[in-house]
Amino acid sequence: MAKEITPRSENYSQWYLDIVKKAGLADNSAVRGCMVIKPYGYAIWEKMRDQLDKMFKETGHVNAYFPLFIPKSFLSKEAEHVEGFAKECAVVTHHRLMNDPNGNGVVVDPDAKLEEELIVRPTSETIIWHTYKDWIKSYRDLPLLINQWANVVRWEMRTRPFLRTAEFLWQEGHTAHATAEEAMEEAALIHEVYTRFAEDFMAMPVIKGAKSANERFAGALETYTIEALMQDGKALQAGTSHFLGQNFAKAFDVTFLNQQNTEEYVWATSWGVSTRLVGGLIMTHSDDEGLVLPPKLAPTQVVIVPIPKPEPEIMIAADRIADDLKAKGISVLIDTDDKNRPGFKFAEYEMKGVPVRIGLGKRDLENNQCEVARRDTKTKEFYKLDNIGAAVADLLDDIQNNLLQRAKDFRSEHTTAVDNMKDFVDVLDNKGGFVLAHWDGSPETEQKIKEETKATIRCIPLDAVEEEGTCIYSGKKSNKKVIFARAY
Amino acid sequence: MAKEITPRSENYSQWYLDIVKKAGLADNSAVRGCMVIKPYGYAIWEKMRDQLDKMFKETGHVNAYFPLFIPKSFLSKEAEHVEGFAKECAVVTHHRLMNDPNGNGVVVDPDAKLEEELIVRPTSETIIWHTYKDWIKSYRDLPLLINQWANVVRWEMRTRPFLRTAEFLWQEGHTAHATAEEAMEEAALIHEVYTRFAEDFMAMPVIKGAKSANERFAGALETYTIEALMQDGKALQAGTSHFLGQNFAKAFDVTFLNQQNTEEYVWATSWGVSTRLVGGLIMTHSDDEGLVLPPKLAPTQVVIVPIPKPEPEIMIAADRIADDLKAKGISVLIDTDDKNRPGFKFAEYEMKGVPVRIGLGKRDLENNQCEVARRDTKTKEFYKLDNIGAAVADLLDDIQNNLLQRAKDFRSEHTTAVDNMKDFVDVLDNKGGFVLAHWDGSPETEQKIKEETKATIRCIPLDAVEEEGTCIYSGKKSNKKVIFARAY
Repeated sequence: MAKEITPRSENYSQWYLDIVKKAGLADNSAVRGCMVIKPYGYAIWEKMRDQLDKMFKETGHVNAYFPLFIPKSFLSKEAEHVEGFAKECAVVTHHRLMNDPNGNGVVVDPDAKLEEELIVRPTSETIIWHTYKDWIKSYRDLPLLINQWANVVRWEMRTRPFLRTAEFLWQEGHTAHATAEEAMEEAALIHEVYTRFAEDFMAMPVIKGAKSANERFAGALETYTIEALMQDGKALQAGTSHFLGQNFAKAFDVTFLNQQNTEEYVWATSWGVSTRLVGGLIMTHSDDEGLVLPPKLAPTQVVIVPIPKPEPEIMIAADRIADDLKAKGISVLIDTDDKNRPGFKFAEYEMKGVPVRIGLGKRDLENNQCEVARRDTKTKEFYKLDNIGAAVADLLDDIQNNLLQRAKDFRSEHTTAVDNMKDFVDVLDNKGGFVLAHWDGSPETEQKIKEETKATIRCIPLDAVEEEGTCIYSGKKSNKKVIFARAY
Repeated sequence: MAKEITPRSENYSQWYLDIVKKAGLADNSAVRGCMVIKPYGYAIWEKMRDQLDKMFKETGHVNAYFPLFIPKSFLSKEAEHVEGFAKECAVVTHHRLMNDPNGNGVVVDPDAKLEEELIVRPTSETIIWHTYKDWIKSYRDLPLLINQWANVVRWEMRTRPFLRTAEFLWQEGHTAHATAEEAMEEAALIHEVYTRFAEDFMAMPVIKGAKSANERFAGALETYTIEALMQDGKALQAGTSHFLGQNFAKAFDVTFLNQQNTEEYVWATSWGVSTRLVGGLIMTHSDDEGLVLPPKLAPTQVVIVPIPKPEPEIMIAADRIADDLKAKGISVLIDTDDKNRPGFKFAEYEMKGVPVRIGLGKRDLENNQCEVARRDTKTKEFYKLDNIGAAVADLLDDIQNNLLQRAKDFRSEHTTAVDNMKDFVDVLDNKGGFVLAHWDGSPETEQKIKEETKATIRCIPLDAVEEEGTCIYSGKKSNKKVIFARAY
């Protein structure tokens, strides 16, 4: 089975598509650019969602649900927003079908044309701020800390499962505040939550930074981002948190009476991560044998495979081991299939990225041991059956840490500082990865570099060192290096 | 505050709308027929969803996600399905907006017309069975036990928050089986899961039954339903589980090789419950003071109100009580507001349906007690602070049971057996509720009764007693009574 995966070295894009297909994560659908998320892929997304939801709630947020549709006129209320966003989207124009008079199935009923077209939300700032106008009257109604889990649609031309699809699942937070400072703190808080989630749960190291003006969200004054590095040396924007200033409040006329009884516009943030994270997870850890999952997000953390078959004696021992593991909060599956051989099953569980595989045969039972294989390093070791729960819990922690460390090492090896355009292009073309370079801060220079090299400024790192330098493109003065890369 | 609710006796519909608004459950939106589910309403839905999801997983189901859009041609593949369903729906015809050449915001780009229109899913049988064709080849691929949590859209003319909205949230299960028997068992299993959820968690008693042919889901051979009775004497269809036979498999050509290596069409079920359940929950238990929630679905089960204000001494005791409650798995909120008076707060928490309110003043502390008020009966009692956690846990159980019993009693009082049309109409007009009557089993009779009385057959109860009788409308022979009612 593993042989059917295209090696990364041969064709990275095909390798990715092979993993998505053969690990059973997603399928193409009958609708252009939309994917079907299969049960195993959805189980990973559920683990991500549940963890993020917990973190949002712990930081004081609540969930709500706003309409799928946005009246067309709303999109043009915030000028920059419509410029940056609203063009490629699904437009609902009618509300009824009818039987085809010629007998060929159903056709759109021309009498059921909507007075105003509805847009399937590409993001919900407009409809939410329209709603907030009714909810916010006084400083006592603030802050409003609301999140929504939803599907959104952006009519993308070139799609790729999880990384870029016409419909995707995401969360979008939309908060309202009495002061600019508080809104900026909120945007920074969520930036930190996203960072912790990426590193502590996905084992995916990220650079925390701010977007340049060119790359900001349409309508934002500041966009914070977390940027990850994939194994092919391309960057992935993994999550963004925006300080929106008073732009949407002004567009939708949302004011409040402050403590001095003066009317003011409300301050806003929005922030989101999506099923794109599943794509990032795959591309950060997986190898030529298949998916590799960090234990904290693996739907099944341990699989027990009876060797060579599920005979009663072995199954009793497997049940006992499973109970020990479950008592430690570990999710475990016992393979009960009696048709396929162990070798076939091993390849199958490697393909699915199950972090730990336990092989258990009669000889093992005689020796009071089992064979424990870890997916990340593909090494095996015998474990005594006594205290197996605690030992495997430690192993899972170790795997989680190892994956993060491995990804950090990869990133270090693929982060290069350069001083001139020649080296810049050389690194991009031959080594890939993050390229640190001085930039003069102008949108024009950024645009020219993008046109000439296809590299964009991924972010201005929050921890960038202040230093004198000259822009690699214009030669003008610069006081810190920023991070460039080619990106997904 | 409570005074602002219209009493049920005066105007039941308005009472319902008042509760939805004043308890902060939902709001109207800018989009016709679509609601905004506010944080408190969404928190109730989350509790329902999490519990149902747990029950689905415990019975072997997994979640997946299928596209929001359905190609128009899919809807006409299953003949009965399109007849029963596809007409009132949101139709996507274009995929791009453009700046209005006249400078008035954005308009639909006429060049971006889709080759085939897309329908926003009103339900997903068609796109899912199209997908299953790729997933099912052999008996080894069966059963497929998949559920999806999603939003769906049906262009309803008359809408009412939660009960009937153009967009709503739901789960839809779609399973595939090798035999008719197994599919029928699945439909029955889910029927049982829905019943347990309604009664054990919502405290909403339901009649388990089968729909008459007229009332079946479009494309189903059998539709099981759970039917609840609201306080105004109208029925609410709360959940349905369908045995679809081979209809969708034939429409989408989904076959499998059975163990004898013969090709056969796959057998199917589908089943769903929606945010409509929130409407049923409200209408089953609430009163003229506001929402009443069963403890198992209340976002906050207990609120502690310091009397008259949150002074330090009282707050320390409140924290200690809260810890005791939390240790018993009870969700608790301590009111820290120092502006409003206790009376105002009491009315507020009654409006929100918090099952238990604990009042705590200095005098109480001196007596080592607190005042415990239950929302369902509006009675108060002093509880000793020792062992308060266990005592309140018992009280919550008692409230849960009392709500179910109260609703059962109401239903018993409002279930009437009749023998002739005169009594039938008399009960419908003057008493309401479920009406048990003999019916000759013909769709024509059912249709005529509906036209003349607005009552429909809610279900043929699974536990109906076999007895000789004559149809109240046609006088023809009948062997059991069925349940009629006017319904939401």
